[in-house]
Amino acid sequence: MSEVLSGRRGEAFEDGKGGLSVVDVDVHEMLTSVKDLVPHLEEPWRSRIEVNDGFKGPPGNPYSFPQPAGVAIQDAVTDDGSPAGSKLEMLQEQVLDRYGIEPAVLISLFHPTDHQIQPEFATALASAYNDWVLENWLEKDDRLRSSITVAAQEPRDAAREIDRLGSDPRFVQVILPAVAHHVFGRQYYWPIFEAAQRNDLVVAFHQSGGTRTAVGLPPYYIEWHTAISQNWQSQLISLIAGGVFDEFEELKVAMVESSWTWVPHLMWRFDYNYRSLRREVPWVKRLPSEYIRERVRFSTQPMEYPEDPEDLYRMFEMIGSDEFLMFATDYPHWDFDSPEQALPRSFPKELQRKILSSNAREFYGF
Amino acid sequence: MSEVLSGRRGEAFEDGKGGLSVVDVDVHEMLTSVKDLVPHLEEPWRSRIEVNDGFKGPPGNPYSFPQPAGVAIQDAVTDDGSPAGSKLEMLQEQVLDRYGIEPAVLISLFHPTDHQIQPEFATALASAYNDWVLENWLEKDDRLRSSITVAAQEPRDAAREIDRLGSDPRFVQVILPAVAHHVFGRQYYWPIFEAAQRNDLVVAFHQSGGTRTAVGLPPYYIEWHTAISQNWQSQLISLIAGGVFDEFEELKVAMVESSWTWVPHLMWRFDYNYRSLRREVPWVKRLPSEYIRERVRFSTQPMEYPEDPEDLYRMFEMIGSDEFLMFATDYPHWDFDSPEQALPRSFPKELQRKILSSNAREFYGF
Repeated sequence: MSEVLSGRRGEAFEDGKGGLSVVDVDVHEMLTSVKDLVPHLEEPWRSRIEVNDGFKGPPGNPYSFPQPAGVAIQDAVTDDGSPAGSKLEMLQEQVLDRYGIEPAVLISLFHPTDHQIQPEFATALASAYNDWVLENWLEKDDRLRSSITVAAQEPRDAAREIDRLGSDPRFVQVILPAVAHHVFGRQYYWPIFEAAQRNDLVVAFHQSGGTRTAVGLPPYYIEWHTAISQNWQSQLISLIAGGVFDEFEELKVAMVESSWTWVPHLMWRFDYNYRSLRREVPWVKRLPSEYIRERVRFSTQPMEYPEDPEDLYRMFEMIGSDEFLMFATDYPHWDFDSPEQALPRSFPKELQRKILSSNAREFYGF
Repeated sequence: MSEVLSGRRGEAFEDGKGGLSVVDVDVHEMLTSVKDLVPHLEEPWRSRIEVNDGFKGPPGNPYSFPQPAGVAIQDAVTDDGSPAGSKLEMLQEQVLDRYGIEPAVLISLFHPTDHQIQPEFATALASAYNDWVLENWLEKDDRLRSSITVAAQEPRDAAREIDRLGSDPRFVQVILPAVAHHVFGRQYYWPIFEAAQRNDLVVAFHQSGGTRTAVGLPPYYIEWHTAISQNWQSQLISLIAGGVFDEFEELKVAMVESSWTWVPHLMWRFDYNYRSLRREVPWVKRLPSEYIRERVRFSTQPMEYPEDPEDLYRMFEMIGSDEFLMFATDYPHWDFDSPEQALPRSFPKELQRKILSSNAREFYGF
């Protein structure tokens, strides 16, 4: 007990003239876990805490949205309480062996770029994470490839990390989170793109806990998940308007889990605006849609599913390239796609083959 | 000169033992106008200040992006220095008479909802603005209709303003800005929707100085203008997920200047997510796309222009309604559309007629 609580410094208390009051004992530190609250909750809130993988901690991180059904597919849930999909054997059995996949590119939700404090520590964590992936995943199955994780808030340190690992052919890309606080087209971040190009690596964008929408973090997960492609859109607009593709002429970009049926809209609108407003960004030499078609690739997951699958194919045609799309699973999350059901059967067979295999092989140089 | 500057309180100064120093004279208040800096600027920056309507003041408001060509069409620039398009005679000659338009709905960029200080003053400004519109515009040309401006940060006061004017048939809608700081589906704002429904008024969304993207305010106007439809998307998602259309069964919503070729993407993605995640929002009774088709309308301006105009028509068909689109001009801004060139000539004549006339008549009950 502290001196204050025990009253040793309280004259009035020692004299027996009054009881001691305290107005700030931090109750939240007395909770062992939010599960302690279960007996005091009604449904549906009770099961949002009890559900597998449902509630991870403090608000503000979209992955901690207390979801009615958790974020993982049931098959990938582990027996020992470790996170879903965190075991190599599961990934081998449920994805690599089952579908004959080779290679598979690993992408993590561990993004030190999101750390808003102690950037040097974030840099150290990124480096440690890459070593951990090497030791525990890449060394154990040669079908696996991975992404170089960096702390983008210190671009020069991030470039050093890219140079450290870039010659290892198992690292095929640099991964950046599509987040609100980093607008990656700005020159501040260019050392990262320069290092990626120097090492012949793709730069990929994926969501993270810092992914926001035009209204920040909306109150429901269904809203966040419906709107988050906005962040990839803004990053793509920023890379083009900032002149990244003009400055780094060999740079290639992958938009992973961004979905893609918004691309025709964005291409049309950006091209129209470019024709009217390009004097503001004279370093951008070509129509935005040309950079997108030639230098950017998208992934299948999540896919939109119109009632008429022909609409999806029309959307595909509007983009004007059969090379822009690559198969992604999002294993082990609830919206996991298998190669068997990711594409409508009405898609031309040759196109399906490109999406499921050769587009990624050509883009990454597998 | 203040006492401090004149040294009357400085003993050392009076004694002649030292000169007086001052470390904080606010230089920006010594500038009469940012135009004072023109002689010290090189091109292209010099002409961004000199250009008509180009630079309005402090950063942070997207309308103050120093634009290479200003925001207004040349025809609408006034002789006397008042804002472009601020004269009734101009509007009559350049829009109403020229194209035989009746009625025309006025929408302002004056949005007291964006004021982050003194909400009661914002409420008073909204009310004063509505009276000013009545006196200076609606009373002077009976082809004009207008929008009720409110300060949405105080929803009960906003509802009172809607009730004050709602029975005047010249006010056909309540206007809300599509901004980052208000997520309009939340119950906090419901008094506004309740009042709109009670007065049989549409609720319309339009951009304002507070319109942001998934990365906030990006550095270039071309980025902001390419990405801002994100904010309407987030508001639409919020209205649906928040249950606004279920709670207010007669409520109608207009998305003005949001563009619309993103709608198929959003409908598909939201419907898919609804099927998987609706347990989180059990008050939402129908597929999101059904609310959008039945209760929401979009405007033509800005329109996207694919190389093949047939793509635009295909996009139109994907939405599955020929009633969702209404003609808008955005007069007097640089991307102003006339009814003669707003639609591709390849659109079916009957559809053109609906977009240019009857869709709005039916929706607003003109």
